[in-house]
Amino acid sequence: MSGPGTLYGVGLGPGDPDLLTVKAVRLVQSSPVIAYFAKKGRRGNARTIVDPWIRPESTELPLFYPVTTEIHFAHADYVSEVGGFYDQSAELVASHLTDGRDVALLCEGDPLFYGSFMHIFVRLRDRHRVEICPGVTGMSGCWTAAKTPITWGDDVLTVLPGTLDRDDLAARLAGTDAAVVMKLGQNFSKVRAAVTQAGLLDRAIYVERGTMPGEKVVPLAEKTDDLAPYFSIIVVPGQGRRP
Amino acid sequence: MSGPGTLYGVGLGPGDPDLLTVKAVRLVQSSPVIAYFAKKGRRGNARTIVDPWIRPESTELPLFYPVTTEIHFAHADYVSEVGGFYDQSAELVASHLTDGRDVALLCEGDPLFYGSFMHIFVRLRDRHRVEICPGVTGMSGCWTAAKTPITWGDDVLTVLPGTLDRDDLAARLAGTDAAVVMKLGQNFSKVRAAVTQAGLLDRAIYVERGTMPGEKVVPLAEKTDDLAPYFSIIVVPGQGRRP
Repeated sequence: MSGPGTLYGVGLGPGDPDLLTVKAVRLVQSSPVIAYFAKKGRRGNARTIVDPWIRPESTELPLFYPVTTEIHFAHADYVSEVGGFYDQSAELVASHLTDGRDVALLCEGDPLFYGSFMHIFVRLRDRHRVEICPGVTGMSGCWTAAKTPITWGDDVLTVLPGTLDRDDLAARLAGTDAAVVMKLGQNFSKVRAAVTQAGLLDRAIYVERGTMPGEKVVPLAEKTDDLAPYFSIIVVPGQGRRP
Repeated sequence: MSGPGTLYGVGLGPGDPDLLTVKAVRLVQSSPVIAYFAKKGRRGNARTIVDPWIRPESTELPLFYPVTTEIHFAHADYVSEVGGFYDQSAELVASHLTDGRDVALLCEGDPLFYGSFMHIFVRLRDRHRVEICPGVTGMSGCWTAAKTPITWGDDVLTVLPGTLDRDDLAARLAGTDAAVVMKLGQNFSKVRAAVTQAGLLDRAIYVERGTMPGEKVVPLAEKTDDLAPYFSIIVVPGQGRRP
C-alpha cells in the first residue's frame, strides 16, 4: 500500500437522491475528495445525484471522458484513448490517496455492475486500500418505475447489452424467462426488432429515467419513435410460479 | 381504492442495515405498521435488518410461512397451502390499509426481484395504493463482498435459480459471460457439478451472508463441503472488454 488514503467506490443507485444508501451518504459526506466521471463539458448524472448530500468544502475531482460514442468501442483508437484516460484518471485518484486523502468515486447504480469505477479499481487495488459500497442498480430503478415484478420463483433473468447483434439478442431473449436490455441509445430500433423476433413485443416495457424527474414508462408496443437515451432500458418481466 | 392507507414494499438491501436507502429508512420510521415474512418460530432476517431503524411504537405484523422447504414447491399441497397463506397475509395487510394505516412490508434485497412481497402486491394492487422502494439486491451484496466486478462492457449476465436441473444449469452457464446462481441450499452439490461441467469451476466464487456478520467468501474450487444456506450465492464474474 503506497498511502494511507482509501478509495471508496460509492454506488449511488438509479437516480433519485433518496435512493442512496445510508452508507453511501456517509461516505459522500466524510470523504474529502469526491471524484466522478462525466462527458466533457457536462456536469454528469453522478454528480447531480449527490447534490443534496455533498458538502461544499469537498474537493471535487471530475474525470472527463475523452470520447463516449463518437468512436466505436471495438476500434483500436477507442481502446487506446479510453485506456489512457483510465490510466491518467487512476493516477489523479492515486495522488490524493498517496497524500492521505480518502477519495469517494461516485458510481451510478452499483459500482461492480457495468461501472466505469471498475477500470479504476483494477488499476489501484494492488497499490491502495479500496472499499466498495453497493448500490441499487439502474435496472431495479426501472422495473420499480414500471411497477412490475421482474422475476418469480424459478425464473431465469438475462441481462443483455443492446450492443449485441440482432440475432444473438433475439435468441437469448427467446431462451430466457425474464430479461433486461440495457445500453439502448442508437441500438434501440435493432433491439425492438429483436424483441419482436423473439415474440416478446407484448410483454416488453420501455423505461427512461427510472426514479428520476422526467421518468417515462411505455409498453414497447406503444412506443412509436426510435429515440432512446443510452441509459434507457427495456424490461421483459418473468411469468414464473406464483402460488 | 378501498381505503386511504398505502402499502409500501420496502427493499432492505443485502443485510447490512447501513445498506438501506435513505428512502427505506424514512418509510420504516414513518409507517405505523411494519409487516414482514418469517419462518415460523423465527424472527426472520428482514426484521433483524431494521433493528437500528425501527421505532418502538410501531405495530409489528409478522407473517409466518406455513411451510418453506418441507414440501416441494411443485407439489399441489405447496401451491395450495402457500397460496392460501398469501391470501390471508394480504387480508391482514389490507385490514390496516382499510383503516387508514400505512403498512411498510419489509423485503430483503429488492422487492420486485424474487421477493415474497410480489405475492401480496399482485393481490392488493387493484384495491389499494401501493408504492415500491427498490433496494440493493442480495447478489450485489455478494459480488461486493467478493470484491469482484461482475459485468464488463458487453458481458451478458444470467441469473439462475439453483433449483434448475443440472444439465439446464450447465448449458446456461456455458452460454453466458457472467452468472449468478441463487437459491443454493440443498441444491449446492448439483450446482457445483453444473459449474464444473460448464468448465467454470476456476472462475466461480461462493459467497455466504454477503455484507452481514459471518460473511464468507471462498473460491468454489476450494470449498470442500456441500453445506450452503438457501440465501448463499455463487458468482461467476464476466471477463469482457476492459480498455
